[in-house]
Amino acid sequence: MSAELDFIAQLRPLATDPGARGLLDDTAVVELAGGTLVLSHDVIVEDVHFLAEDPPGDVAWKLVAVNLSDLAAKGAQPLGVLMAYSLKHEAEWDAAFVAGLGEALAGFGLVLYGGDTVALPAGTPRFLALTAIGRAAGSVPSRSGARHGDAIWVTGTIGDAHAGLRIAMGERNGADELVERYRLPRPRLEAGQRLAPIVTAMMDVSDGLLLDTRRIAEASGVGAVIDLEAVPMSAAYLTYAGDDRGARLSAARAGDDYELLFTAPPERAAEILALSDEIGLPFTRVGRIEAGAGLRLLDHGKEIPLPPQLGYEHH
Amino acid sequence: MSAELDFIAQLRPLATDPGARGLLDDTAVVELAGGTLVLSHDVIVEDVHFLAEDPPGDVAWKLVAVNLSDLAAKGAQPLGVLMAYSLKHEAEWDAAFVAGLGEALAGFGLVLYGGDTVALPAGTPRFLALTAIGRAAGSVPSRSGARHGDAIWVTGTIGDAHAGLRIAMGERNGADELVERYRLPRPRLEAGQRLAPIVTAMMDVSDGLLLDTRRIAEASGVGAVIDLEAVPMSAAYLTYAGDDRGARLSAARAGDDYELLFTAPPERAAEILALSDEIGLPFTRVGRIEAGAGLRLLDHGKEIPLPPQLGYEHH
Repeated sequence: MSAELDFIAQLRPLATDPGARGLLDDTAVVELAGGTLVLSHDVIVEDVHFLAEDPPGDVAWKLVAVNLSDLAAKGAQPLGVLMAYSLKHEAEWDAAFVAGLGEALAGFGLVLYGGDTVALPAGTPRFLALTAIGRAAGSVPSRSGARHGDAIWVTGTIGDAHAGLRIAMGERNGADELVERYRLPRPRLEAGQRLAPIVTAMMDVSDGLLLDTRRIAEASGVGAVIDLEAVPMSAAYLTYAGDDRGARLSAARAGDDYELLFTAPPERAAEILALSDEIGLPFTRVGRIEAGAGLRLLDHGKEIPLPPQLGYEHH
Repeated sequence: MSAELDFIAQLRPLATDPGARGLLDDTAVVELAGGTLVLSHDVIVEDVHFLAEDPPGDVAWKLVAVNLSDLAAKGAQPLGVLMAYSLKHEAEWDAAFVAGLGEALAGFGLVLYGGDTVALPAGTPRFLALTAIGRAAGSVPSRSGARHGDAIWVTGTIGDAHAGLRIAMGERNGADELVERYRLPRPRLEAGQRLAPIVTAMMDVSDGLLLDTRRIAEASGVGAVIDLEAVPMSAAYLTYAGDDRGARLSAARAGDDYELLFTAPPERAAEILALSDEIGLPFTRVGRIEAGAGLRLLDHGKEIPLPPQLGYEHH
């Protein structure tokens, strides 16, 4: 059996939907009763988005999670995925990847609809592409709906994943839970679905809270103010980095959080906090939308200069 | 402006559908009035599926065409695409690619819904992933419906693209139209849509007529016979390769044809030939489905041994 057929045979148990046609066909066929389709297509590349020494199962999880995080920000319910996989004739890596993929898909209630495998020349970094297909029940938030006077909120805690990356790379010491935040991001699907009818704008925080806030402000044609001291940080992060302005700026500029950043009129605050309690995930108010343009940063009420880099910009 | 933002700005004119949200959002949002969604996700990699010296616009065309060929085999109408692109800081290549992508999308009446770009380390081959989204009006053929007694048909001519590849690589001399068949495959969308209600099984020929015929036979639990002398070859191919058994076997094992291979009961022959006339694309009967299993090959009615390789097998 060729390496590709062997790999597809390993994937077949994950392709439980009839639309996947047992991975024996070139396309997936999905029956829809109408509604709104939400599609994301994100790629992760070895040495860019993950480390060669990361556990392969965690890489599979991350590939699924980063795509679902995009769907979460739309309030969409994910249905399944298509994956393009690069085979490098490392059967043990592939098997561990498939096991992790199976856990991720099962954990999120998804099916594998199909995809493609391609054998890569030796020495090429692994390149993994995933398309996630979801359905939105009602309104689908965008980045562009924030209005003057809205509060800015974020779910969970900020900065953990980037700290985890530095710990995984051996640059710093810190808690394993930070490394886990880097390797196994949790897309905020339930929060996204429940928040979608309430928010005026929403996106996931993948490139840094400050940068992504500025993106919402730009897309919405408004300004934004972030209160640095309000940015929620975990106990593990505070132990790792301290609680001075530098540590907070570092968290607010870090990537890979995969939390949700959203705006809503201030009068929705009680409803938002009740929802936070109900689903057991902190939602924290970190700033407000104002007239004008651009991003401003306050530290205990005093404006401070923006850092030269607001987050992870792609070059 | 970063290279990524600059590239996305070049793509924006192709994202004409409101669902693409001007490429400013992380997902595409597609309204559907119900029906059947058909999804393909194929990747092409430099030095594997295309040559580094191929014109970038032709690479874009091929990326779109190979995915649409999968949709054609389902009788689906393509709606749009998501693309994952690798940026290598070669602005001229990128611009030529975008121009070719625009031509391909316009030519097929498609929109760009979104996707992802990733900057690759120097020395890495380009890796291009595309997800094509289509809608099927009625029945969606699979590989597995062929029945004993069905005729096996193929559209167009076989072997041209592989000859074109060898010419493009400077290994052989031959007509430019063969190189064009390699670089600019034409997905048989109209044929697929019109044939879908008639056929018992259908797929596109991407890895070789013999190999893909055996795949239909295996998926359908039947045997198949191909009449080698019936395999349709172009005048340019005959000039390039001659018309002996070796030339015919070589065509029948070659990849990248992107024609449609389908089976249908013999009593549908007149209808199939009338359709061929109507849309101006030859459909040729090349064999038949029989009881049993496996593939047999006839040359002027006499059984001949199968070649050791039936087509392009992925390893």
